[in-house]
Amino acid sequence: MSKRSIVSLFFEPKSIAIVGSLSQEWFGGLAIYNNLKKLGYNGKIYLVNPAYNEIYGIKVYPSLTNIKDDIDLAIIITPAKIVPSIIKDCIKKGIKAVIIGSDGFADIGDEGKKLQDEVVEMAKEEGVRILGPNTVGVINTSNNFTTTTYRLEYNAFRRGGISIIGQTGMVGPQAYPYHELKFGISKVCDLGNKCDVDESDIIEYLGEDEDTKVIVLHIESIMDGRKFKRVVEKVIKKKPILVLKAGKTVESARAILSHTGALAGNYVLHHNIFKQLGLIEVDNLHEMIEIAKAFVSQPLPKGNNLAIITPAGGMGALTIDYAIASGLRLARFSQKTIKKLIKIHPAIAKNPIDLGYTFVRGIFPFREVITALNEDANVDCIFCIIWTPLWKLDKSYRETLREFKDKLSKPITFWVYGMDNKVIGKVRSEIEEAGYPVYLNIETAINALAALCKYSKIKTTK
Amino acid sequence: MSKRSIVSLFFEPKSIAIVGSLSQEWFGGLAIYNNLKKLGYNGKIYLVNPAYNEIYGIKVYPSLTNIKDDIDLAIIITPAKIVPSIIKDCIKKGIKAVIIGSDGFADIGDEGKKLQDEVVEMAKEEGVRILGPNTVGVINTSNNFTTTTYRLEYNAFRRGGISIIGQTGMVGPQAYPYHELKFGISKVCDLGNKCDVDESDIIEYLGEDEDTKVIVLHIESIMDGRKFKRVVEKVIKKKPILVLKAGKTVESARAILSHTGALAGNYVLHHNIFKQLGLIEVDNLHEMIEIAKAFVSQPLPKGNNLAIITPAGGMGALTIDYAIASGLRLARFSQKTIKKLIKIHPAIAKNPIDLGYTFVRGIFPFREVITALNEDANVDCIFCIIWTPLWKLDKSYRETLREFKDKLSKPITFWVYGMDNKVIGKVRSEIEEAGYPVYLNIETAINALAALCKYSKIKTTK
Repeated sequence: MSKRSIVSLFFEPKSIAIVGSLSQEWFGGLAIYNNLKKLGYNGKIYLVNPAYNEIYGIKVYPSLTNIKDDIDLAIIITPAKIVPSIIKDCIKKGIKAVIIGSDGFADIGDEGKKLQDEVVEMAKEEGVRILGPNTVGVINTSNNFTTTTYRLEYNAFRRGGISIIGQTGMVGPQAYPYHELKFGISKVCDLGNKCDVDESDIIEYLGEDEDTKVIVLHIESIMDGRKFKRVVEKVIKKKPILVLKAGKTVESARAILSHTGALAGNYVLHHNIFKQLGLIEVDNLHEMIEIAKAFVSQPLPKGNNLAIITPAGGMGALTIDYAIASGLRLARFSQKTIKKLIKIHPAIAKNPIDLGYTFVRGIFPFREVITALNEDANVDCIFCIIWTPLWKLDKSYRETLREFKDKLSKPITFWVYGMDNKVIGKVRSEIEEAGYPVYLNIETAINALAALCKYSKIKTTK
Repeated sequence: MSKRSIVSLFFEPKSIAIVGSLSQEWFGGLAIYNNLKKLGYNGKIYLVNPAYNEIYGIKVYPSLTNIKDDIDLAIIITPAKIVPSIIKDCIKKGIKAVIIGSDGFADIGDEGKKLQDEVVEMAKEEGVRILGPNTVGVINTSNNFTTTTYRLEYNAFRRGGISIIGQTGMVGPQAYPYHELKFGISKVCDLGNKCDVDESDIIEYLGEDEDTKVIVLHIESIMDGRKFKRVVEKVIKKKPILVLKAGKTVESARAILSHTGALAGNYVLHHNIFKQLGLIEVDNLHEMIEIAKAFVSQPLPKGNNLAIITPAGGMGALTIDYAIASGLRLARFSQKTIKKLIKIHPAIAKNPIDLGYTFVRGIFPFREVITALNEDANVDCIFCIIWTPLWKLDKSYRETLREFKDKLSKPITFWVYGMDNKVIGKVRSEIEEAGYPVYLNIETAINALAALCKYSKIKTTK
């Protein structure tokens, strides 16, 4: 069995065994089992715990070796000290992929690190790959699979093209409302202590994965620089990779050493590697997933000339500050566009296009504006601010967005504001249902466009 | 009448006249009138429009001069070109405070600027103060007053100690869910084109205003540097001032010139003035208002040593990056605190305190942790991350926060995450109802603590 296909077992197992605690509903083996049933995973699930014969009518095996069927993936959530003996059973049973959810390894210091090394050595000898320890494992939405050890509050994932790799449980389904993400997700992987399977293994797998359109990576350290470079150089031509580097300071690097037992590595060095390889850096977990939305819903722009549509001049000015900071330029409209805009109202014939002047006069030119910008070769991308009462007054917003879904050749991102959060949420949903990404703040909407521009350039030069 | 008391008329009028359009429900004079009735403003309201005798049974006056009672404040929303004649009526009527809501002045170029100058000259000669043009005016929650020209979607403001000055309609009640802000607001002022009343006038007024505990300022340019310095130096000793400077780039400065007719001024110069005077800079409108929450709900810290409580190590590491960037330091716990934490569980006896190790083992030590941190002189401020399922499992969160409301001598901010946005919103509400500020992302929660630290230092050195 090749390494490639062992990594795929973590996401696409036909049969799994859960080894460990069955004492609680909200955490542990029962939570995993119930999550999978609720989500509709249709592989075989075996429970292993010597203290039970059965639980809720489900058979429980005393040991992995008592199971007759083949097991693609074992998930271990026992106390750390008995993990080596379970790994021995995995080897006996011929299991090639193991997730160790338990904490108490390199994450608690030298003694734990020793135990972790022992486990890794045993596994390596037999070609067993380990994800973790100290991980909530994976999500794969295409087969309704997740190994998170916490009871989920929802019943179904929303499928999409975003795949996420994290060095934290925060990327697990217990920590993020993935079911509410309009553009959906494909795969998620929490690397935990990274004793064996690392970011490069998963990037390589996701690079080949047809469902994955964009890869986002939260990382504290790169385990193997050469491997990372080799894998990323191959994948980046096909798919964008966004990256959030944690551990930028001496203080956070110390905390990382203390919670995973790993060195965070020098940030400047990481920053340079990312830049050289064409990864796009983001500043926080929220932006990491939010910016990915633009990649799965919008075309890549030809250049970085931005057009802004706003109902308020003050917002336009703030937007420009963020745009310039992110590397975008303010588009200079063609004479043809200027003429079209003057015809609507002279006060809007400039960039930003301030629709505040038109709507208070009963003029609603959204369709004409979008048409003009789509035809203007001086415009590469568009940012549009929506004020909720205007969305209600001006039916052309809705109609235009529907009409342009397949006609708009340029990426567009949105920000919605208004006087009531419920109404804002509703308008946001409507726009996203129509296929356009909406952001919670102007900066992220602008950073998303800037990220598209950066990748567009990377793709043509790599 | 002194200048001070004229400015107060903009916020505390006993009687107002609304001059202009009555043709629409959602915008103009009717919107203002209906908003005020709905909010419960109990001053007198006069409508002025020569085309009506009455509307919905309300008397409409042909001109300001036909009104017999005294008028504290006139709000003009007529086409720009007839504004000079209305100002003449204001002068005749002895009205000293005028809000010009209309656009079409310096905001549309040279011709509009000429008209604006004409209006200002007339007013100055007679001691009439003008707010605007091109403004939605003010909010005062203490008398349920607002001049926004847009129909509000809510019926009541929530009173609090945050006052906001903006050079954009975005600070108006039509653009922000002020009624949903748990810590409430006091006054809001949109300066518009700033032809007369400027940021310094309003800062001076708010400095004396008992309801205002913190002032937040969105600004594109300072009109009069010496006046600004004089006013701020006086106010900053009593109240913190947060500032968002728009127009940081050549491109946005050009857009500002074009939408308000004003020069944005060099950003570095502004930055240095803010720093010298002790204003605290923020990056966006959201942070501007969100960070203010910390000032009205939390005590000022003695120093900048931060303790972090997290349910996940990865989050702790990211938090440290933001903390160091914002000027905070990671607190080194006292030996006493370390001993107490070791007693709970050795794995949590460090900063960040990673409660992930305890709760999966059925230990819920939130109360003990807060008690220890409150007593530790090495800790000046606290950031706490809440995972919603843990909030549900661990009743001590709720009880501890209630118990410590008056006992906690250090500022604390929160970030809440989980797997469902509704649940997250509910927990967020519960914590804010208990009196503690919760933020939508880690950075803002950290920036809020850093802002408290900065002001604490400013207050002791100014």
